[in-house]
Amino acid sequence: MSVPPSNFDQRPSLAADTVARAELSPLSFLVRSADVWSERPAIAHTNIVQTYAEHHDRVRQVCGALHGELKLEEGARVAVLLPNVPEMLELHYAVPGASGVLVPLNTRLTGSDYAYILDHCGARLLIAYEPLREVVDEARGRLGSRAPEVMWVEPGRRGDWNQMVSSGELVDLRMPADENTLLSLNYTSGTTGRPKGVMTTHRGAFLHSLGVIAEAGLSARSSYLWTLPMFHCNGWAYTWAVTAAGAQHVALSEIDPALIWRAVLGERVTHLCAAPTVVVMMLNAPEATRCPHEVKLFVGGAPPAPALLERAAALNIAVTHLYGLTETYGPICVCAWNPAWDEAAADEQARRRARQGVATLVSQPLRVVDRDMRDVPRDGATIGEVVMRGNNVMLGYYRDPAATEAAFAGGWFHSGDLGVVHPDGYIELRDRLKDVVISGGENISTIELEQALLEHPMIAEAAVVGAPDERWGEVPVAFVTVAGAGAPAPDELRQFMRARVARFKVPKRFERVDALPKTGTGKIQKFLLREQVRQEPQ
Amino acid sequence: MSVPPSNFDQRPSLAADTVARAELSPLSFLVRSADVWSERPAIAHTNIVQTYAEHHDRVRQVCGALHGELKLEEGARVAVLLPNVPEMLELHYAVPGASGVLVPLNTRLTGSDYAYILDHCGARLLIAYEPLREVVDEARGRLGSRAPEVMWVEPGRRGDWNQMVSSGELVDLRMPADENTLLSLNYTSGTTGRPKGVMTTHRGAFLHSLGVIAEAGLSARSSYLWTLPMFHCNGWAYTWAVTAAGAQHVALSEIDPALIWRAVLGERVTHLCAAPTVVVMMLNAPEATRCPHEVKLFVGGAPPAPALLERAAALNIAVTHLYGLTETYGPICVCAWNPAWDEAAADEQARRRARQGVATLVSQPLRVVDRDMRDVPRDGATIGEVVMRGNNVMLGYYRDPAATEAAFAGGWFHSGDLGVVHPDGYIELRDRLKDVVISGGENISTIELEQALLEHPMIAEAAVVGAPDERWGEVPVAFVTVAGAGAPAPDELRQFMRARVARFKVPKRFERVDALPKTGTGKIQKFLLREQVRQEPQ
Repeated sequence: MSVPPSNFDQRPSLAADTVARAELSPLSFLVRSADVWSERPAIAHTNIVQTYAEHHDRVRQVCGALHGELKLEEGARVAVLLPNVPEMLELHYAVPGASGVLVPLNTRLTGSDYAYILDHCGARLLIAYEPLREVVDEARGRLGSRAPEVMWVEPGRRGDWNQMVSSGELVDLRMPADENTLLSLNYTSGTTGRPKGVMTTHRGAFLHSLGVIAEAGLSARSSYLWTLPMFHCNGWAYTWAVTAAGAQHVALSEIDPALIWRAVLGERVTHLCAAPTVVVMMLNAPEATRCPHEVKLFVGGAPPAPALLERAAALNIAVTHLYGLTETYGPICVCAWNPAWDEAAADEQARRRARQGVATLVSQPLRVVDRDMRDVPRDGATIGEVVMRGNNVMLGYYRDPAATEAAFAGGWFHSGDLGVVHPDGYIELRDRLKDVVISGGENISTIELEQALLEHPMIAEAAVVGAPDERWGEVPVAFVTVAGAGAPAPDELRQFMRARVARFKVPKRFERVDALPKTGTGKIQKFLLREQVRQEPQ
Repeated sequence: MSVPPSNFDQRPSLAADTVARAELSPLSFLVRSADVWSERPAIAHTNIVQTYAEHHDRVRQVCGALHGELKLEEGARVAVLLPNVPEMLELHYAVPGASGVLVPLNTRLTGSDYAYILDHCGARLLIAYEPLREVVDEARGRLGSRAPEVMWVEPGRRGDWNQMVSSGELVDLRMPADENTLLSLNYTSGTTGRPKGVMTTHRGAFLHSLGVIAEAGLSARSSYLWTLPMFHCNGWAYTWAVTAAGAQHVALSEIDPALIWRAVLGERVTHLCAAPTVVVMMLNAPEATRCPHEVKLFVGGAPPAPALLERAAALNIAVTHLYGLTETYGPICVCAWNPAWDEAAADEQARRRARQGVATLVSQPLRVVDRDMRDVPRDGATIGEVVMRGNNVMLGYYRDPAATEAAFAGGWFHSGDLGVVHPDGYIELRDRLKDVVISGGENISTIELEQALLEHPMIAEAAVVGAPDERWGEVPVAFVTVAGAGAPAPDELRQFMRARVARFKVPKRFERVDALPKTGTGKIQKFLLREQVRQEPQ
């Protein structure tokens, strides 16, 4: 028996193209929430709360200013250099809503970084935080006549930016004519060189936001605390997801454990995302109290340590581990908690929670592949590179076809992260591809060595890189900073490591430094350490 | 100052088309859940539970049977006539996953209806429930040589369908090459004439499912009870949303309050959708007990009455009112509960909860418009027609360009439902467009008259239609069935109504009937009553 299609005619009329389709855009979330949740709190900052109606009006005033006073043209880049102030949230809607492209800048970069990015993205307008005037002026000095106009945001809704906006007309957000339109350029932090401009789209941001809502369980009763900077991958899409749910944004423009705890308890915070250092700071603060309601905390960047998970649980805080990159709109991978693990022993739970996990609901399955793009076995041991594709993978690097082509080799985005796949399909990272040391044909994970070094009570920080070696190709070299006054002797460290890792992995040299080189976001710049060891005599 | 775009270059490489894009399809949900939630329960039915891994394997076997034994071609329609048995859920994935188009049939239609739909959709295969053999055979008899092959599902996983499937090879689900590919044809219930085949797509179903997850708050800890037939708009997309969340499906193939309560308590049900009559039956059952955990109940079709809401609250059941049509993938509108209303008086809460509400997160805003497509004022009084557009509006009616064009007049889908918009933007339905009676230039809502009639203790059911009238154009005529042995006299009813509605609205005639004509889904067929009054002397 066969079942052929007979006179199959799927699209009966052109009308379906307008009636049965709308271009996906996160801008639609604000328009809806301004109507449905008009009198509900949209954003609380210091002691000011704006309702969704007020917030929406403000965004429309920004659109009015961009259209009217600034005559923004379609596709023009608008750079923003702001901490988590309400103006930053507004610009996440107003710039794309005025058909522009948002370029959020990390507040901890140097004048030279800003000059590079501003020049590269071609922004003619920069909206910047007045307390950062010095570094902005340095960047402008470097750019000379190519420098963008700057408008300033001062704390407390002051500065010429706010002045101009408050006299602007209200102009409705304009939906993109095509959902694949560029929404933002998010520059990478440059651990491996110059920052690259990651291109995200309205479609990607819309879908990523729905994934966030599904994973985080956001609703109109939620209250989201901003400690994660909105300039990081547009705040992992929470800028849009929180608004979509009609939940409240609680914006902190600085990281202060006392402020965090006051907000958690006073604003009844239910959700937050944070970097590992912020989590540690928060959980160990003297203000830390058991929350009367469960708080969902999402952490990315490093696996949460067992002690931290235990402390969080005691405070009624449920920690979820996420993983992603700027190139994947932030977290594309979640350590989805299986209810069956509720009954596991604490150390088993901690081990499971430390894994990076699985692709989110709106993401394509992640793969871990060998050099020939073959999937590694699900054995929790074979290391491969994590590669991604799908709607929440960037369009490419802005004005950098060579880097894009390299990153998209074989039709997948190459994360540069190395990991294993456990038998249950959960991914666990082992190292950065570029950070791995290949010694005598063996891959040595520098993360493993760094974690072992950190077990030594006198060591505060550790970074391991490969140094050229005539016999082995490369050998691991460790850089450490120490916690107190004293310092362990290299021989002592060598013995210490031998007790912990395979002999071939033990670093050949241990160098004590006062500080490790870091990016504006606090990531260790291993490429600088590698340059250093390359210049040293072997 | 102006901000022009300089050398704006959005798409750097063709690679982005494969790396930065995946076609949206709800099939991806099952593939993910089979991996992430492999050992978790997917579906419980009678005393059998299948895990997601087992359920996925079964779906792949069905794909294998469709490809292998049945040689299904791309785009071929496969009709299914099944209650909520596991086979029905499997076919929601396997048919589109084998590149076919699913045609779910209502189990309560007549042989003549089935003959019409099967002929119209051109299905060459029907998978049917063996207990419905008589009516299926009648349909086949009518179709003669044009009748499709039938394979039978018998209760308890028996019948030739299950026999063939269980010997089939496992074939992976095939994702659509284009997300706008047809996924299913859902025939309307035909209150106004012949059933029409509503065309839904993979993209629409994917987005609608994400909307369901956001509104219902589904998670891997949820357990969803099937009382709503899956053949109704593919179970309002819960067929896909529950699977996406890694939640458990609990399938009841018949509606029985004792079974419902056993499932709610025994399977720890957290969510269910139900028709108003099922809700009433459930809440008034002798087995009704206060649930130890909150149950979210979604009801569509008629506003929940205040007494019902009160009873539900006492049982720890939170009721949400939804509204939609087959043409909008089921509910496109939700009475989103504003936390600010928690403190309102009970009658105020009931009034708010009875409204149809606002467009869901993934939907375009609904409009209520006059004949010239102008929005009615938000005054809670001016009646207009509800119109929709967007990703969860059908592509059109299958093989019916004329009906599609009529439904899509002015670039919006015309629901045929009449309603008002309240000042807060919430929509409340007043009547069906075709059911309104226009008398002396005044619109008379037949719903209003029917509700007033139902307040009479002797009246069980009421239906009001317009009869032609020389002087007034139309006049309302009421058809009623009575509850007990006696019946109120027409004059008594006239007095009764005069005390309740404006004089011009009082029905000119009251006709007592033994039963009202109804569709297979229990909707009153007013067009038959209208035909009747048109043939009667005025």
